[in-house]
Amino acid sequence: MADFRQKALDYHAKPVPGKISIELTKPAESVGDLALAYSPGVAEPVKEIAANPDAAYLYTGKGNMVAVISNGTAILGLGNLGPLASKPVMEGKALLFKRFAGLDAIDIEVKHRTTEDFITTVANIADTFGGINLEDIKAPECFEIEQELIKRCKVPVFHDDQHGTAIVTAAGMLNALEIQGKKLHDVTIVCMGAGAAAVACMELLIKCGAQRERIYMLDRKGVIHTRRDDLTPHKQLFANNTDKRTLEDVMEEADVFVGVSGPDVLPPEALKLMAPNPVVFACSNPDPEIRPELAHAVRDDLIMATGRSDYPNQVNNVLCFPFIFRGALDVRASAINDEMKVAAVDAIRNIAREPVPDTVLRAADVKELNFGREYIIPKPMDPRLCQRVARAVAQAAIDSGVAALEELPPGYME
Amino acid sequence: MADFRQKALDYHAKPVPGKISIELTKPAESVGDLALAYSPGVAEPVKEIAANPDAAYLYTGKGNMVAVISNGTAILGLGNLGPLASKPVMEGKALLFKRFAGLDAIDIEVKHRTTEDFITTVANIADTFGGINLEDIKAPECFEIEQELIKRCKVPVFHDDQHGTAIVTAAGMLNALEIQGKKLHDVTIVCMGAGAAAVACMELLIKCGAQRERIYMLDRKGVIHTRRDDLTPHKQLFANNTDKRTLEDVMEEADVFVGVSGPDVLPPEALKLMAPNPVVFACSNPDPEIRPELAHAVRDDLIMATGRSDYPNQVNNVLCFPFIFRGALDVRASAINDEMKVAAVDAIRNIAREPVPDTVLRAADVKELNFGREYIIPKPMDPRLCQRVARAVAQAAIDSGVAALEELPPGYME
Repeated sequence: MADFRQKALDYHAKPVPGKISIELTKPAESVGDLALAYSPGVAEPVKEIAANPDAAYLYTGKGNMVAVISNGTAILGLGNLGPLASKPVMEGKALLFKRFAGLDAIDIEVKHRTTEDFITTVANIADTFGGINLEDIKAPECFEIEQELIKRCKVPVFHDDQHGTAIVTAAGMLNALEIQGKKLHDVTIVCMGAGAAAVACMELLIKCGAQRERIYMLDRKGVIHTRRDDLTPHKQLFANNTDKRTLEDVMEEADVFVGVSGPDVLPPEALKLMAPNPVVFACSNPDPEIRPELAHAVRDDLIMATGRSDYPNQVNNVLCFPFIFRGALDVRASAINDEMKVAAVDAIRNIAREPVPDTVLRAADVKELNFGREYIIPKPMDPRLCQRVARAVAQAAIDSGVAALEELPPGYME
Repeated sequence: MADFRQKALDYHAKPVPGKISIELTKPAESVGDLALAYSPGVAEPVKEIAANPDAAYLYTGKGNMVAVISNGTAILGLGNLGPLASKPVMEGKALLFKRFAGLDAIDIEVKHRTTEDFITTVANIADTFGGINLEDIKAPECFEIEQELIKRCKVPVFHDDQHGTAIVTAAGMLNALEIQGKKLHDVTIVCMGAGAAAVACMELLIKCGAQRERIYMLDRKGVIHTRRDDLTPHKQLFANNTDKRTLEDVMEEADVFVGVSGPDVLPPEALKLMAPNPVVFACSNPDPEIRPELAHAVRDDLIMATGRSDYPNQVNNVLCFPFIFRGALDVRASAINDEMKVAAVDAIRNIAREPVPDTVLRAADVKELNFGREYIIPKPMDPRLCQRVARAVAQAAIDSGVAALEELPPGYME
């Protein structure tokens, strides 16, 4: 453990600090090169963009550039450590954008004085980029921040902790339920946790077919129900008209448990109460709501997913965010709407249902992967993700009328 | 001309739009790599930075990263075309930072609603970077913006249009005066133009020895004098207690003319009025205040500089800004103060006084360069600039007490 800590610090410190750099995509050797890149040549694209703002996509890096923006109020599971401390995570996200989707991404850490001030700051710089990925911003502020920025910005704004998690969760859930012989429309769902990811997961499951009244959400005080008077607006959306009050009350005959809360909060006794063939997504990271060994010891009819790479069925945002931005930017979408999110869910879940190429097996260091209890979600290194998810998202953007392009570029992601 | 226009547009559009990209400086191939770069490994540098903000220089790219920030209110000579239209220029500046000094630089275009709002936005994101280069911001707002940001930011803030121009001008001016057998302390200076660059040039010349009362600054209304009641605070600093009112009045027996105004505003007749062995810096770009051919036809005792690369003695900011940031960031300076600016002036001027390496001659495509009337300023491709200017600036930061480092790193820029 001390070894891993030092290895992680060394990785970040050597041979140069950090993980990303800026490089040139054009020649800059001769005096002639510089006359094109800067004065006097640069005046030409300036004039084109002044006359037509869309020309920025033609003459600058805007169309391939994502800003990864945080205020550092909810860094990983570590809490509110401030913007500067979030920088390694944001640079890491930029690394993933480039590695998985070829997108140029730059981290911006923003001082958070008031929510309005934060929103204004991001809105003021938004036009620099092709899209904005919000990250590690705590609830409930994250809801207002995302909603306001969506209104004020011309480029797509996406809070990955909410929607990235929700999309991968929904993809895995639909596959797990199919294997268990259940339908999302019919299942009873317990959601442990009522933060940003929990709310987004449940909203997206509802869009995919789940019934709001069959969802029981719990926060630190227990079940969220209509007679509570301490609910934020987002929790109110999930207030259930029920007499159930405890985790045990709602776990009785539940089909699905989604944990986006904290370690070890799901006792084996509660797991025993669930209906036959349950699905448990214990996504708290690094320590899940219940350890898989323990869960499987209690129930052998279980399908389980976690946030960890060392167990089967990892719910990992990297399956989604690089590609949803890739698709959105490639058709110059002005937003990432529900249609695009649902398209991403379907694309991700379908990949897991198809035969796995050898390259993916080698990258995942396994002999075989067959759609089933231990493989309901694709692996992060699967190259089909970029193709399929980006293409599905881009097409959904066009079909739902938020894309500047009217059709996919010829041969796009084929 | 149409050809050059198309060439400049093609350079910006092909094979990919823009001029810069984000690349990875660390391996990101295996699952193990990603465990270090992102979750769970990234938590380790996060905790280090939360405990000690300076650790950001050790574990993130902050210490090598410059933000190039504009509101697009004074783009090149093209005027106020808005933030988005400034993007090619800002990306060009980023290209120059990388090309000449190995600094990672990213452009941020900021919506300008009010000056206070702009300042707050930049201050809120400043800690992301090791330094901030302000660019193409119009006067007089640029003065307040820079001064306020210097107060509010922990990292150096530098408005290149002011100080980069001033530093290169002062370096060339000191050399020109030496050749003409004059001293800055004794000369009478006419400054045509009263914008950001003009004010910064004159302030720095004063710091290098010029006398404020021997400077005559002119704006569109003529000489700036103490009986005018229409002066901004920055112009007031140059209000001369004089009866002179016109360009011709002040050119009579003047030793130095500095033009930072517009094309062809210096008539040959006015040039004839100057004292023997005058120095004329006609920096309006691309068309100088007087064409060199015309000036030399009128006076054969003249030393002349312009902003153009196709005449001798080009006043080019790229001689300064990459290296002043290089030096400032390498010792983690909290500011770019006057001592550092003067150190840059001396380093730049001294390079022109020394024998020129063959590599520089080849890059400049000339047979020889000897310190004299046609070579008072180094060439942009001179590799000595980075070494000398960065080193001088870094040492000056240490000596003036604004550096986090107490001495230069061993072997720095040797």
